[in-house]
Amino acid sequence: MRPEFLGNHYILELFDCDADMLNDIPQLQETMLKAAAIAKATVINKSFHKFSPHGISGTIVIAESHFNVHIWPEYGFAAVDLFTCGDTLQPEAAKNYLIKAMGAKDFEYAKMRRGDVKKNENI
Amino acid sequence: MRPEFLGNHYILELFDCDADMLNDIPQLQETMLKAAAIAKATVINKSFHKFSPHGISGTIVIAESHFNVHIWPEYGFAAVDLFTCGDTLQPEAAKNYLIKAMGAKDFEYAKMRRGDVKKNENI
Repeated sequence: MRPEFLGNHYILELFDCDADMLNDIPQLQETMLKAAAIAKATVINKSFHKFSPHGISGTIVIAESHFNVHIWPEYGFAAVDLFTCGDTLQPEAAKNYLIKAMGAKDFEYAKMRRGDVKKNENI
Repeated sequence: MRPEFLGNHYILELFDCDADMLNDIPQLQETMLKAAAIAKATVINKSFHKFSPHGISGTIVIAESHFNVHIWPEYGFAAVDLFTCGDTLQPEAAKNYLIKAMGAKDFEYAKMRRGDVKKNENI
């Protein structure tokens, strides 16, 4: 049976996060990997980079798509994307964990459904 | 001066793409790297994986955030994310290139502004 959608994509905007989390790659990486574990994702690869004078970007490639984080420490801000496919993962649990773990004093999120393949009659 | 937004995020849903592009990692990778060049992004790292029995995930880490692609060849579908920060990049040109290069017979896209840091008065 063709699924209704192929993927779930949580878009998280985390404001006024803990300063430690915004400048420390090992701590941020551990937090993102724990989020992947909470989501029950299978980690394939990861890539975290610190930029000059500040800022961190991190990607975790999972068998079920990806988790991304981009940090602007000068604004206390983290942009997070949790893209998962399949029915067995728990991205919402990962979202809830990350909001707390990043110490976000304010946040917004949107849940997008990706791959509405039923709408396209050609496929 | 604090920018109005920190990042631009194009979310692309590409339907009924060229079969070649959906199964060939080197071709897909070359296409995504060309999109990054068209956007005037600085590539830092890339990671492309083919899954069994089918499917490809690709991440290009750029100095200005990331490009992602996830492929479901069985549905002819590609989910693409182009996340850029700063004022000098041209993600819209990359978006237009990718729609053509992937041979998408139908597509949808949304442009999201990420990091509306002005709204948060604490920072």
